[in-house]
Amino acid sequence: MVAPELDHEGRLVGMDVNSPQGMSFEEAAKGVVAMARFAGMRGWVPATSGNFSVRVDEKWAALTATGANKAELDEAGVIEAEIAGPKHPRASAEAPLHLVRYRAAPEIGAIAHVHGLAATVLSRRHEKAGSIRLEGWELLKAFPGIDTHEAHLDVPIVPNDQDTDRLAGLVEEKLAAGGPFHGYLIAGHGLYVWGGSAVETIRHMEAFDFLLTAQMYEEGAR
Amino acid sequence: MVAPELDHEGRLVGMDVNSPQGMSFEEAAKGVVAMARFAGMRGWVPATSGNFSVRVDEKWAALTATGANKAELDEAGVIEAEIAGPKHPRASAEAPLHLVRYRAAPEIGAIAHVHGLAATVLSRRHEKAGSIRLEGWELLKAFPGIDTHEAHLDVPIVPNDQDTDRLAGLVEEKLAAGGPFHGYLIAGHGLYVWGGSAVETIRHMEAFDFLLTAQMYEEGAR
Amino acid sequence: MVAPELDHEGRLVGMDVNSPQGMSFEEAAKGVVAMARFAGMRGWVPATSGNFSVRVDEKWAALTATGANKAELDEAGVIEAEIAGPKHPRASAEAPLHLVRYRAAPEIGAIAHVHGLAATVLSRRHEKAGSIRLEGWELLKAFPGIDTHEAHLDVPIVPNDQDTDRLAGLVEEKLAAGGPFHGYLIAGHGLYVWGGSAVETIRHMEAFDFLLTAQMYEEGAR
Amino acid sequence: MVAPELDHEGRLVGMDVNSPQGMSFEEAAKGVVAMARFAGMRGWVPATSGNFSVRVDEKWAALTATGANKAELDEAGVIEAEIAGPKHPRASAEAPLHLVRYRAAPEIGAIAHVHGLAATVLSRRHEKAGSIRLEGWELLKAFPGIDTHEAHLDVPIVPNDQDTDRLAGLVEEKLAAGGPFHGYLIAGHGLYVWGGSAVETIRHMEAFDFLLTAQMYEEGAR
Repeated sequence: MVAPELDHEGRLVGMDVNSPQGMSFEEAAKGVVAMARFAGMRGWVPATSGNFSVRVDEKWAALTATGANKAELDEAGVIEAEIAGPKHPRASAEAPLHLVRYRAAPEIGAIAHVHGLAATVLSRRHEKAGSIRLEGWELLKAFPGIDTHEAHLDVPIVPNDQDTDRLAGLVEEKLAAGGPFHGYLIAGHGLYVWGGSAVETIRHMEAFDFLLTAQMYEEGAR
Repeated sequence: MVAPELDHEGRLVGMDVNSPQGMSFEEAAKGVVAMARFAGMRGWVPATSGNFSVRVDEKWAALTATGANKAELDEAGVIEAEIAGPKHPRASAEAPLHLVRYRAAPEIGAIAHVHGLAATVLSRRHEKAGSIRLEGWELLKAFPGIDTHEAHLDVPIVPNDQDTDRLAGLVEEKLAAGGPFHGYLIAGHGLYVWGGSAVETIRHMEAFDFLLTAQMYEEGAR
Repeated sequence: MVAPELDHEGRLVGMDVNSPQGMSFEEAAKGVVAMARFAGMRGWVPATSGNFSVRVDEKWAALTATGANKAELDEAGVIEAEIAGPKHPRASAEAPLHLVRYRAAPEIGAIAHVHGLAATVLSRRHEKAGSIRLEGWELLKAFPGIDTHEAHLDVPIVPNDQDTDRLAGLVEEKLAAGGPFHGYLIAGHGLYVWGGSAVETIRHMEAFDFLLTAQMYEEGAR
Repeated sequence: MVAPELDHEGRLVGMDVNSPQGMSFEEAAKGVVAMARFAGMRGWVPATSGNFSVRVDEKWAALTATGANKAELDEAGVIEAEIAGPKHPRASAEAPLHLVRYRAAPEIGAIAHVHGLAATVLSRRHEKAGSIRLEGWELLKAFPGIDTHEAHLDVPIVPNDQDTDRLAGLVEEKLAAGGPFHGYLIAGHGLYVWGGSAVETIRHMEAFDFLLTAQMYEEGAR
């Protein structure tokens, strides 16, 4: 696989925004690499953390392999995982959190998990409340279905759990109870965010990071 | 259009500072691209937000098209809009906020709209006051007509409004009542800033971002 | 020595993670350069501060020479020091803090000393307590032996001392009393961190910087 | 003049540290450009602010011209100014603050004036006290004559003044009353810092920026 074309800031150049389904594994892997390097350049995947996936079709997804350094990811660090199948031998422990989302929502074309500073700090501060409300910010309009700053977006927060199958169950239960959500936080851990494609998911990553950072500065130190 | 020459930090190389009027669309578009990429490299246009324009002459302006990713903008993302004419089909919803300024102030050669962190946070904190005063900072001298730190600059803050024609009317009313202003904030949204040319507007973007960031750290967390 | 291959963000490309012992001096020096440049690009070695080492074998280590600018380090700034031998004429004053660790722990393959902002600020804030507890963060799992966020990591803090032989003695006493520790802070000074190899130590540097920064924002201003 | 060799982070490659006097104007201008670009890449010269100089010999200094964008400085933006002579027609308004230092202290080989965030914020917070004390930080050792963290460094703060001849007189009076100082702050304005050469002055810029940033985080929001 040729490395995706990224500009100086790690943005993906010339990628088609709207083809979440029916693409080849190679195309999907290109999107995975693009999301990972974009996040890496912004410091959102410290110490080889984070993981990324792009749906190939109804049955398969391209997914970062366990142990790969996401900030310098290439083809060798991307595996093809069956969405409803048995665990891939090189899948990371967090693979269930990706795959369950693809099963639950056919409109999802790509998923990113990142460890931004504000996401991590606010996920603990608001853990007891079970969610954090983003409200009144113009950048909420980055998410589909939101066309005014007068909207609000509740970002669910779930307690961290090393049993990722159990965690995935809890997450889906919370997500099914409302929404649309576009992302959620795991307390002390980080952000999961998705979109119709890798490019849209990159946009949503940026929007969440900006909104959560602004929220953190607005709340100030406790 | 050849991409403008930008240095490592995204600064425009060798652009003529003083020809806001009478330039070709291609020259104006070059200025639009330069402002957009400069802002993109500093993280001021997250999630494809922000928009930029350069006046071509009395009647026309080069303007970012709706939906373009400003951080990787090129010629295809710039349209030629009539300053007092009907809405261009690819104009963004915020085009009126640019065009009304060119009609009101013939000395304006370029306009930038960016979403910096401090601008966004302070625009909400001071919304009720209707403005934020920057006072006593040496960098105020970056703005024309200010030649001492003993000056102050009141930056108007208007409430956000998705009806940008109505918002533009409110903005112009506030700007006509005093000034000169060099820029204003929309609450929870971001900064509008202008200058005689793209290069001067880049300088004013930098000055506002520095001054508002210093102000945010000086005020501290509430 | 050819400069190590680093990507845009200063990450070491293609380095073997698991050969802390038995490598040549040239290989070890390559790891030293990679750690130093990685830290330099992140602003962790301001004003030529910081120092870095990689174990060559049981008896020798590659070590940054005194006075070298770590952010632009090359072969000329790396010396070969005897782990239990007399002081190398070009060794920095802090060499004993490296060498004593290699003597105490044969599993250590590389050591980094950096001056990150959060490490420096928190090292003073918690100096009297003698340690700072990192607890409940997912990224704790970046350290070997920690496989759940429900763990905690106590990071010892020792008072600064210009007599680095005496300081090394105090550090080893503290480290021998508990652990495993993976790193410690010197008050008002910075962080020492180690791992089985240069690549693992880079990962631990990133993990400590992220965790201490998150901790600093969580604690807020006093 | 060939552009100086700068690495990815804007550090000057291969410059001789110890020849503050007796160099050619071309060599001195190279040092001016290196300091300016280094500061530009770190965001310390927003909106074309800042100025830089290197002593050529007892009588002359290379100095940034007024209006030049320091972040993209080249030969055309550097003038040769007489240290005790009449004002150069392209000298900036702040030239007297440079030249008076060269007259007062023959050991000074280079001077930088930068607008870092922490320097600007703290210069106002501590203006009434007339100075800010940096104490107990290991990085104080970056300054010549300081060989232990148990030292302190008092950084004088003078009120800002647009009459730079008068300001220069006040500064020299304060500096003559104690020291050595290595740098001073102008309230709401920025930092002046010097060293024996351009390379040493770059190191002192980095040290002041790190120390003042750590101090700002330690003090917290008021």
